[in-house]
Amino acid sequence: MTQITAAPQTVAHLAQALIACPSVTPARGMVFDCLEAALAPIGFEVIRFVAGAAPDGPVENMLAIRRGPEGSRHFAFAGHLDVVPPGEGWTSAPFAPEIRGELLYGRGAVDMKGSIAAMAVAARDIPAEAGTLSFVITGDEEGPARYGTLALIEKMREVGAIPDLCLVGEPTSVNRLGDMAKIGRRGSVNIFLDVEGVQGHVAYPHLADNPITRLVAMLTELKALMLDEGTDWFQASNLEVTDLTVGNPAHNVIPAKASARISIRFNDRHTGTSLSEKVMQIAARHGGSARALISGEAFLTPPGAFSDMVSAAIEAETGHKPELSTSGGTSDARFLKDLSPVIEFGLCNATMHKRDEAVAVPDLEVLARIYRRIALAALASN
Amino acid sequence: MTQITAAPQTVAHLAQALIACPSVTPARGMVFDCLEAALAPIGFEVIRFVAGAAPDGPVENMLAIRRGPEGSRHFAFAGHLDVVPPGEGWTSAPFAPEIRGELLYGRGAVDMKGSIAAMAVAARDIPAEAGTLSFVITGDEEGPARYGTLALIEKMREVGAIPDLCLVGEPTSVNRLGDMAKIGRRGSVNIFLDVEGVQGHVAYPHLADNPITRLVAMLTELKALMLDEGTDWFQASNLEVTDLTVGNPAHNVIPAKASARISIRFNDRHTGTSLSEKVMQIAARHGGSARALISGEAFLTPPGAFSDMVSAAIEAETGHKPELSTSGGTSDARFLKDLSPVIEFGLCNATMHKRDEAVAVPDLEVLARIYRRIALAALASN
Ligand SMILES: [Zn+2]
Ligand SMILES: [Zn+2]
Repeated sequence: MTQITAAPQTVAHLAQALIACPSVTPARGMVFDCLEAALAPIGFEVIRFVAGAAPDGPVENMLAIRRGPEGSRHFAFAGHLDVVPPGEGWTSAPFAPEIRGELLYGRGAVDMKGSIAAMAVAARDIPAEAGTLSFVITGDEEGPARYGTLALIEKMREVGAIPDLCLVGEPTSVNRLGDMAKIGRRGSVNIFLDVEGVQGHVAYPHLADNPITRLVAMLTELKALMLDEGTDWFQASNLEVTDLTVGNPAHNVIPAKASARISIRFNDRHTGTSLSEKVMQIAARHGGSARALISGEAFLTPPGAFSDMVSAAIEAETGHKPELSTSGGTSDARFLKDLSPVIEFGLCNATMHKRDEAVAVPDLEVLARIYRRIALAALASN
Repeated sequence: MTQITAAPQTVAHLAQALIACPSVTPARGMVFDCLEAALAPIGFEVIRFVAGAAPDGPVENMLAIRRGPEGSRHFAFAGHLDVVPPGEGWTSAPFAPEIRGELLYGRGAVDMKGSIAAMAVAARDIPAEAGTLSFVITGDEEGPARYGTLALIEKMREVGAIPDLCLVGEPTSVNRLGDMAKIGRRGSVNIFLDVEGVQGHVAYPHLADNPITRLVAMLTELKALMLDEGTDWFQASNLEVTDLTVGNPAHNVIPAKASARISIRFNDRHTGTSLSEKVMQIAARHGGSARALISGEAFLTPPGAFSDMVSAAIEAETGHKPELSTSGGTSDARFLKDLSPVIEFGLCNATMHKRDEAVAVPDLEVLARIYRRIALAALASN
């Protein structure tokens, strides 16, 4: 494995260099050195810092800024250099990038080192006078994400670099590069439900209070909740029970406690707090308790000027407009939305988080050109 | 600890001797020697045998018979010499019987070595010409009970000693000796429910099939079943969910499988098989499966001649008639019912299975007199 220090010639070169730096969450050191080596020579001030402490830190982050003329617009590229663990069964080593046919293989090829490489090449081809460009890059997006993009947002406020528009490079394309961009994401909350009862013998149920009976009634009511019927831009919010726990080995004993865990994916009709309170009320009515862990709020960048720029750039390079979607899991856009409108667009996600993750090499160059068009349009807008 | 070989003078003496032989399930050896030493001198032929193999055996059992004149009636005393583990916190050692004040302390004092001692003393005071008497004594009633009373029943058929009436000495009295006898017991079945689904990400529920959703619906339907409203002699059958198992640590994953265990205590309107089939149909309707483990069928010895004998004997010695009940857990009467009408009557059960298990010494002598009256009445009946 060779450390790349010269600015790369092609997106594939830089993508290969980034993949060659193993960076399972939390990403550290070398992979950031590699990106810094691509950005510093093209005029970016690179601010690297480590945030947080155990158990969810420390986390390495990088904010790179190339300031445009006084009063110019600021466009941010955002993403992550950490990758999920490779797992078993790869055809070639996951951190030894290899091109076979038209495909470049390696962990992070699409999620999202290929995308970050395309951003860097796009930035190289954007004149400094066009405006302020920044890279908001964390080493912990796939993990707890507590000291990653949140710490970067704090740093941006600190150095006075709040973007006007932000693009996250997550792999949003499905079957063909450019077929989908994300203008929103649902929020996510996990809620832990507990019901305490009174233990007893099954032969004397009147002397006991079976917590499972009340938990089942509670879950039935929760599952029957019509949270909403979806909106113009979001599918309906959905609740799933993801775990049940009693742990009672005695066949003739009514247990003392029963627990469940639910997960709600919700649209912008709700907040994590409003849903938690609703669930807590239902839990209380069944004599139980609820404890919520909000993973992220919903966000929506309603279709408009920004999504038009993204669609136009994609159409210019691929011949097709993207579907503007709000489906799927959460991303760091849930944090970045507090700074500016944010849209996600990137490579095809078919192999993300899987073995033999791979990107079509031609897509990398097309993506760089799309990113360049988006950035130029964003910097030219007002 | 001294092994008692001479026939005891009082019920308390024999009870103490039996308690002094530790016999946590499965009971073996010495405690049977002790009872044999009480029965052999008063004319009983003692048949001891070991039945079964691991995991639910081997189990030691004793069938003692004193045959009356040709064609006479046969009355059986039934019970168990094994005891539940003593647990912690006893005031005096659980297998060192000790009389403090009016109480005799020791594991098995009421459940049911005190009762077996009373049976032996009663038998001593019944003339051999009155009829055939037997003792049906197992070393495994508190355990799996697979090779205990069931093996004794087989042995009784083998030696041609089928009783006409049978009394089980379980501690059925509640507040005062003689306040309750049991003329029936509910049956018991445990059913294991499994629902298989399709694992998936909570963000894409349409690509998964959450087995918990179906399990909760299944349990709601099962819990809403009105099995019956009780009978003249039985309370309503009852279903309790006793365990839930998923074991899914991943907050964002819909699990592949969910399981539950239910326990049904049922009256003589049902059988273990009829209930298992009903549950299996409901489980199947929700795409799940059910596996039943029938612990025992319900039994009822309808009030009549036999219960009149028991009530009269109790009233003669205590001044009060007993309540005839069918409440509580199962006992070996669930097996003995196949041989003859069976009723359970014994000591006060307040301390059974608890620490500092104790019997009132005067109750032991009263119980022996009650047992003698019952046996004499049974042998005189036709
Ligand atoms: Zn990603
Ligand atoms: Zn017992």
